[in-house]
Amino acid sequence: MDETPPTEILDATHRSLCTHGYANLTLEKIAAETETSKSLIYYHYETKQELFSAFLDYLFDQYTTRLSNVDGQTPPHELDILLKTVLSPDDSETSLQRALIELTIQSQHDDHIQSKLTDFETALVDRLQEIIEAGVESGVFDPEMEPDVTAEFLATAIMGAHTRQTASDCSADQLYGTLVDYIESHLVVAEAVEA
Amino acid sequence: MDETPPTEILDATHRSLCTHGYANLTLEKIAAETETSKSLIYYHYETKQELFSAFLDYLFDQYTTRLSNVDGQTPPHELDILLKTVLSPDDSETSLQRALIELTIQSQHDDHIQSKLTDFETALVDRLQEIIEAGVESGVFDPEMEPDVTAEFLATAIMGAHTRQTASDCSADQLYGTLVDYIESHLVVAEAVEA
Repeated sequence: MDETPPTEILDATHRSLCTHGYANLTLEKIAAETETSKSLIYYHYETKQELFSAFLDYLFDQYTTRLSNVDGQTPPHELDILLKTVLSPDDSETSLQRALIELTIQSQHDDHIQSKLTDFETALVDRLQEIIEAGVESGVFDPEMEPDVTAEFLATAIMGAHTRQTASDCSADQLYGTLVDYIESHLVVAEAVEA
Repeated sequence: MDETPPTEILDATHRSLCTHGYANLTLEKIAAETETSKSLIYYHYETKQELFSAFLDYLFDQYTTRLSNVDGQTPPHELDILLKTVLSPDDSETSLQRALIELTIQSQHDDHIQSKLTDFETALVDRLQEIIEAGVESGVFDPEMEPDVTAEFLATAIMGAHTRQTASDCSADQLYGTLVDYIESHLVVAEAVEA
């Protein structure tokens, strides 16, 4: 009975969320996405709420793993890789951006989801701040800048890019270009660019 | 039969969208928000789709009117008023931010909504560009900056602020502060600040 691994169910939850939206999500639809049955899902998760709570933790782990894996030779290079990582158009079946927007709507009615979405934001801000601080220390980023304020601002712009990617016909490349321009114009010190 | 003005129905549509979400929106729920009946709604709009199309136009008119009404003594002042206008926490019953996020989700399945959301973005970018160009011309904003690129970037950050206001416990004041800091640090030229 326990042959379907939870990750397969959680991936199916992600696909179902992107296809049907949170409001139309049922255990039947999630089961239809796996080669399993509703009863097998209940074997792992007693309620839909419990499944969804596990899904949020799973999504958060994927997100923080992606953020930790961002690696570059210099802080500006690392920041560039981070932007590419968070802005690259995901597989549309399991889009992180799409799932986060669905959860944003749902957070209005659910404190657990709202608190988890705050964790996603904090993880992004913290990783940005880490890279910016390293850049200020190594002299490649403007020493006048306050890394925490800049990290908050960049995180806000990244979340706006997610929303625009989902809402309109704004392309990931165009949004990436806009953010890179900000970093090159305002974060990187002129001497570092010339060198 | 035609005593209920369309604006009353459209305001009720807005409140219903914020309360129930797009997926759960029905004409019954909209009718319950007005002192009218489903048949009165059908008197003005033949289908739910026609009502929703009129609602999108109504919301867009409100948005562009708010953007045009933004007025300040100087371009930095005008930009500040614009930020306060778009970031101020709306009446939660008819939150523009909330409606836009609901529509973002729905735009995945509806080309008409996606195209209308692009119009909202374009209106914001155009208004920002207008103010930034005036500031560059009057010498208060950095003449090195490209107003169209900066307007795109600021619009992205503003949309991120909308998402964060809806998704998490991030306050409007905090997000406003982050954006003002960007404008003061990177757009306004030092001499203008001192003067």
